[in-house]
Amino acid sequence: MARLNDHYLKLAAGYLFPEISRRMNAFSEANPGADIIKLGIGDVVLPLAPTIRQAMHEAIDELATPEGFRGYGPSEGYDFLRETIARNDYVDRGVRIEPDEIHVSDGSKCDSANIQEIFASDATVAVTDPVYPVYVDTNVMAGRTGEADETGRYAGLEYLPCTRENGFLPALPERPVDMVYLCSPNNPTGVVTPRDELRKWVDWARANGSIILFDAAYERFITEDLPHSIFEIDGARECAIEFRSFSKTAGFTGIRCAYIVIPKELEGRDSRGGSVSVAQLWSRRTNTKFNGVSYPVQRAAEAVYSEAGRKEVQANIDYYMTNARLILDGLAKTGLTTFGGVNAPYVWLKTPNGLDSWQFFDQLLEKAHVVGTPGSGFGAHGEGYFRLSAFGLREKVEEAIERISSSLG
Amino acid sequence: MARLNDHYLKLAAGYLFPEISRRMNAFSEANPGADIIKLGIGDVVLPLAPTIRQAMHEAIDELATPEGFRGYGPSEGYDFLRETIARNDYVDRGVRIEPDEIHVSDGSKCDSANIQEIFASDATVAVTDPVYPVYVDTNVMAGRTGEADETGRYAGLEYLPCTRENGFLPALPERPVDMVYLCSPNNPTGVVTPRDELRKWVDWARANGSIILFDAAYERFITEDLPHSIFEIDGARECAIEFRSFSKTAGFTGIRCAYIVIPKELEGRDSRGGSVSVAQLWSRRTNTKFNGVSYPVQRAAEAVYSEAGRKEVQANIDYYMTNARLILDGLAKTGLTTFGGVNAPYVWLKTPNGLDSWQFFDQLLEKAHVVGTPGSGFGAHGEGYFRLSAFGLREKVEEAIERISSSLG
Repeated sequence: MARLNDHYLKLAAGYLFPEISRRMNAFSEANPGADIIKLGIGDVVLPLAPTIRQAMHEAIDELATPEGFRGYGPSEGYDFLRETIARNDYVDRGVRIEPDEIHVSDGSKCDSANIQEIFASDATVAVTDPVYPVYVDTNVMAGRTGEADETGRYAGLEYLPCTRENGFLPALPERPVDMVYLCSPNNPTGVVTPRDELRKWVDWARANGSIILFDAAYERFITEDLPHSIFEIDGARECAIEFRSFSKTAGFTGIRCAYIVIPKELEGRDSRGGSVSVAQLWSRRTNTKFNGVSYPVQRAAEAVYSEAGRKEVQANIDYYMTNARLILDGLAKTGLTTFGGVNAPYVWLKTPNGLDSWQFFDQLLEKAHVVGTPGSGFGAHGEGYFRLSAFGLREKVEEAIERISSSLG
Repeated sequence: MARLNDHYLKLAAGYLFPEISRRMNAFSEANPGADIIKLGIGDVVLPLAPTIRQAMHEAIDELATPEGFRGYGPSEGYDFLRETIARNDYVDRGVRIEPDEIHVSDGSKCDSANIQEIFASDATVAVTDPVYPVYVDTNVMAGRTGEADETGRYAGLEYLPCTRENGFLPALPERPVDMVYLCSPNNPTGVVTPRDELRKWVDWARANGSIILFDAAYERFITEDLPHSIFEIDGARECAIEFRSFSKTAGFTGIRCAYIVIPKELEGRDSRGGSVSVAQLWSRRTNTKFNGVSYPVQRAAEAVYSEAGRKEVQANIDYYMTNARLILDGLAKTGLTTFGGVNAPYVWLKTPNGLDSWQFFDQLLEKAHVVGTPGSGFGAHGEGYFRLSAFGLREKVEEAIERISSSLG
């Protein structure tokens, strides 16, 4: 029989979100009348904004005419979108990024999953703990780790604990690594890495020849004076790649569009010690394995930056951030200890009464009919924590807070 | 500096299509008045069919309402599409395929590029020569080959020559391999593998524990009684994966939708010799690295199977296949020897007067202002051949044939 990639078999069989679904479905079957409110998976709920809808309609009509039809587009995105992104998300905010440093994709999950391919097969990797599971799993699948131990940690990865004690801001790795994944605003903790911390990371990466993979998919949810991009830090162009997404920002989880930023200066080395352009490898990967994002979707993404689009999108973000504030206020009254929720659409809470994450999950499901995400699903240091998402309809969020309060009261 | 994947550096620097563009642009600059007709890259030109346009409009309007909004969809495609595909493309044609064996994606290039990831890192690979370059390049990038020799062949890959002598139907590999890529109707030769040949392949694969990666992206262009799917052959469910695409069939090169079929019976083995389900690994890959195809695009693909959609799409296919017939007839009159073009939108021709592929490319560009694809770009056995695509507007195709005839006359 054909030999398969058995690194896949190292992956924990019970993936987080399927396990949540399993328990939720089991509860529903046993309690057919229960109205479950889901604040688990971070998926948006508000309808597509009118300006974005209009842009998609126009693009489709264009494709349906002989003169407007377009087939294959550039694999890394149309210039109209790359230019719009570079100008609005960077240049107008005082950050130098050029359009050809923007690589458009169909999602940040895909980008943050695929980026490891351009690193050496034995490249060393550091991740935070808790962590967005995709960073870890894709390196496991690529064979950069050994087996997982009983806490779910894979041999060969460097884990950087994010704890209450360090304000959920990880210490620098103890040894140099080829790549390190950082996520700010953080999923799941909701904490943003402040400027002085980012400065430390950039200095460390440059001194150690590491590349920072900076996931800023939630940057639009920042409300305080905190960095939106790692490229706000001098020297980051020599040591960082940034991931951005339209998914949560503009309600694109079902539409699919994102981008990654790779500065021209960014280099790594080949096995003989020669310098290699990171952007060049990524372009080669993209051109060989991808055929670009659907044209109407790229027009939709462009519309996010129009005057009307910007307002509509901001209104939705404000709506979700009001949810976050309501959750924080409501939980504070119950005596729960919370983190995040101010610059991110996630609230990270300490489980009460010494319950572990899954025990609290079960209690919330059974007593309040509310579903969240057990912190332990994000890593060993997530044990004893729980994530609530602010992506929900207002009345559901309010109802959920009430039910949680009574269930704990 | 961070260590990168230097297998990428083995890839030939001058990729085929960029080199074509380079020569075309140089010619345009030197001859500003020249009206170049492109029959090179196989990209569709007819506008999006009305029924497909309508389905996309409706899906977008649905997303713009509170009750119709959908966020993340299932990574492997919505049931409505998987069921429609299984029924129309397989069950109604007498082939047993179930909806959950259909995995929806954003393109066959992506699928045929990504599939190698679920094989062992040292899995052995056979490809035809000439070949669609993605099959080769992605295995080079994954480190399954050595360096390329002067003809562009990579050490460690088994190449199966497709020549005029064997009717462009490759012999079976001389040694067992873990995976073999077959493409039928073939890009670039336009030849379809007949039933008895496919039968040989299936028997061989089962006897040798190989998996056939069967690219049927052009099956809708078959006009004669030839197999559209490898699953028409008994036993293929135990040894094959099939790739299908909406790109050429329904004008989706810019819209992006395709699918792959993995039968439940298909198994490979892990390094300890245990059986592993191929579909299970692919699902794990998809769920970890992909977030599904844009919802309006999936509704567009569904519309391809409606009564009206089917007629519109067939009319476009007929249009392109009439182009192919015109090219075949026109070239025959010039005395050129041609292949393909009857069951595929590609005509494969022998270059005249002992010209090599690039010499003929230059001659055609200079004398006829027509661009095609040099056969040598598809592999060493493509040398001395040339590909013309039938994807063009009728008047352009007719003009191109006339110009080619006069330039050779």
